[in-house]
Amino acid sequence: MLPLQGMKIVELGHYIAAPFCTRLLADLGAEVIKVEPLGGDPFRGWGAQKDGHSVWFSVHGRNKLSVTLDLKSEEGKRRVKALCARADAMVENFRPGYLERIGLGPDVLQAENPGLVIARISGYGQDGPYRDKPAFGAIGEAMGGLRHLTANPGVTDHPPPRCGVSISDDLAGMYAALALVSACWGRDRGQGKGRVLDLDLVSSVFSLSEGMLPEHGLFGWVRQPAGAAIPTAAPTNTYLCADGKWLCIAGNSDLIFRRLMEMIGRPELSADPRMATNGGRCAHAGELDAAIGAWTKTLPAVEAEAALEAAEVPCSRLYDIADCAADPHFRARDMVMEVEDPLLGPVLHPAPPFRLDGVTPAEMVRWTGRAAGADNDHVFYELLGETR
Amino acid sequence: MLPLQGMKIVELGHYIAAPFCTRLLADLGAEVIKVEPLGGDPFRGWGAQKDGHSVWFSVHGRNKLSVTLDLKSEEGKRRVKALCARADAMVENFRPGYLERIGLGPDVLQAENPGLVIARISGYGQDGPYRDKPAFGAIGEAMGGLRHLTANPGVTDHPPPRCGVSISDDLAGMYAALALVSACWGRDRGQGKGRVLDLDLVSSVFSLSEGMLPEHGLFGWVRQPAGAAIPTAAPTNTYLCADGKWLCIAGNSDLIFRRLMEMIGRPELSADPRMATNGGRCAHAGELDAAIGAWTKTLPAVEAEAALEAAEVPCSRLYDIADCAADPHFRARDMVMEVEDPLLGPVLHPAPPFRLDGVTPAEMVRWTGRAAGADNDHVFYELLGETR
Repeated sequence: MLPLQGMKIVELGHYIAAPFCTRLLADLGAEVIKVEPLGGDPFRGWGAQKDGHSVWFSVHGRNKLSVTLDLKSEEGKRRVKALCARADAMVENFRPGYLERIGLGPDVLQAENPGLVIARISGYGQDGPYRDKPAFGAIGEAMGGLRHLTANPGVTDHPPPRCGVSISDDLAGMYAALALVSACWGRDRGQGKGRVLDLDLVSSVFSLSEGMLPEHGLFGWVRQPAGAAIPTAAPTNTYLCADGKWLCIAGNSDLIFRRLMEMIGRPELSADPRMATNGGRCAHAGELDAAIGAWTKTLPAVEAEAALEAAEVPCSRLYDIADCAADPHFRARDMVMEVEDPLLGPVLHPAPPFRLDGVTPAEMVRWTGRAAGADNDHVFYELLGETR
Repeated sequence: MLPLQGMKIVELGHYIAAPFCTRLLADLGAEVIKVEPLGGDPFRGWGAQKDGHSVWFSVHGRNKLSVTLDLKSEEGKRRVKALCARADAMVENFRPGYLERIGLGPDVLQAENPGLVIARISGYGQDGPYRDKPAFGAIGEAMGGLRHLTANPGVTDHPPPRCGVSISDDLAGMYAALALVSACWGRDRGQGKGRVLDLDLVSSVFSLSEGMLPEHGLFGWVRQPAGAAIPTAAPTNTYLCADGKWLCIAGNSDLIFRRLMEMIGRPELSADPRMATNGGRCAHAGELDAAIGAWTKTLPAVEAEAALEAAEVPCSRLYDIADCAADPHFRARDMVMEVEDPLLGPVLHPAPPFRLDGVTPAEMVRWTGRAAGADNDHVFYELLGETR
């Protein structure tokens, strides 16, 4: 029994943010009906394909039903209204104003179903001076303040790198899912009515700004990028190894620092009175990083990691996807699952990111992403009761 | 009326992950009682202080009640049990096994309140071979596969930078909040019983791996870092400007590309047949990036951004916190709020990342983070009904 069993969701989503939101809800047991244009969500054309099917969609579309319709046709509109009339919630990520223009705005949908929760995801939100600008995930990252920090200080021969994944879409999708389920809980607990929720990529990234905003307001501080270091703790950094791979080491507590210096053959540094406190070590972090880096570059990352683990110094290689797929902890926790996909054959899936007592990850992944429109007959004729 | 009004949460949290989870729930209207040790959550000692009060805690502790007690004393245990007996859910981020050792494990708490939802957040999860390793946010980022990607390819004179914020704690906290509210919805909808939820930093980061895992399984692919570029779209990158600031530009659609080349005074590049398609542009991305970078380095970032916006080319400076605080869109949307903090005076807060119809952000931020134990009397004597 999954927590959201019985919750009915309509997704009018495309690409990342809204579909990521509904995939989380589907993993938790909700019925998700993904509404796609007749040619399918253009997302299906992204990235690797096998036998004409999107590989990423095996994950992105899992546990969902897929129907296709033309949102601009009368039949399409009628079906969307009928789906929303029986639903708990609808999730969309069109540009602000689009659904209103085609006659499927919140007023129309909630007139037929006053309990409907509507989660809207956009780049900049449903109002404000930038609402009509085109939204890109990279711009959400930049404007939300994350890209300024994801950088090595003072480096100008390389740009600050992206996070490498569609983080701003993912964050907005996660917040949409949380707000949506919360609105359903409140409605069913007695508030009675649905709500319209307004999520945006920029705010979602900006929400991770820790104490930066009050610190800026009170003291005028502007946090600057610190690369792989933490300015207030030392030694903790990421070091190059003999095989060109990087090793993240957190050696900044007094006891761990001593074990780390012992391991790299520099016990005199832990005896050095300048290095007795974290404050002293921060003041000489460059010297410590040089000593640690001189040791890591003599060993392949796996060997340096094993040596430090034996010395109980917290560390981790920077795992790539092959490292994740092969790791015994990932396998023991079913974080990497072998799943049969009728379109692709046997594939690997990441488990849902929440584990629930009494339910295995395999029970949560009920099916893989289906072809566009695969559920048209089931949804239109059985769930909506249309006559053929 | 906030969506989670009436939901009662106990936080046995410290530092980031569990307190971030409960702050989201508190912003959505839940009653959150944060249980701190007699000296307060050690998090309060982090970062900037004013008049002996943590500045970040103004945000991190907002909308919560704070009580202090000694978890190892009989009185403390009795109070925790009494708080959990009246609660919908409890959130904790101790090391796995700790609560069981002190006699406050899920079995004990659910014996008194079978409906209690318990969300546990840890570095590696409640089981598996790494469960007892010390957890650090940076290591969650590294093992979850994100740090491998947040990098410029082939650069060995600087380490791949951190995300700059405690992203793995934040992600785990967000997933915990979603799973917790979902479990409450299912319980109140008729499933009846509480649940134990197991969230971990590594899985939370790993959940953003897009299609990498099935692509790796099917084809052996291992995604490599791409810096600020997107290997499958060009030109899109981040460029250095005359004032040393960076500008993110997304100029990769055919029409936008033409406008961008016009703006930088290189119309012959958009007429070049090699550059007619995205595929061709990707093959010559270095040449395009050099042309764009030659133009951006002649202008301060603000001027280059304004010129591109006038030409309808999507772009954004990499905002620092001062840019966010001053931006008219952030102000118009109340994403930056002026709040009165009784401990700190007037401070800036980021709005909750979800906007709800009929509720302003100012109505969601009911109070700022309080001193440790500020609510002892109210909670122990009024809510728990203890006699003084």
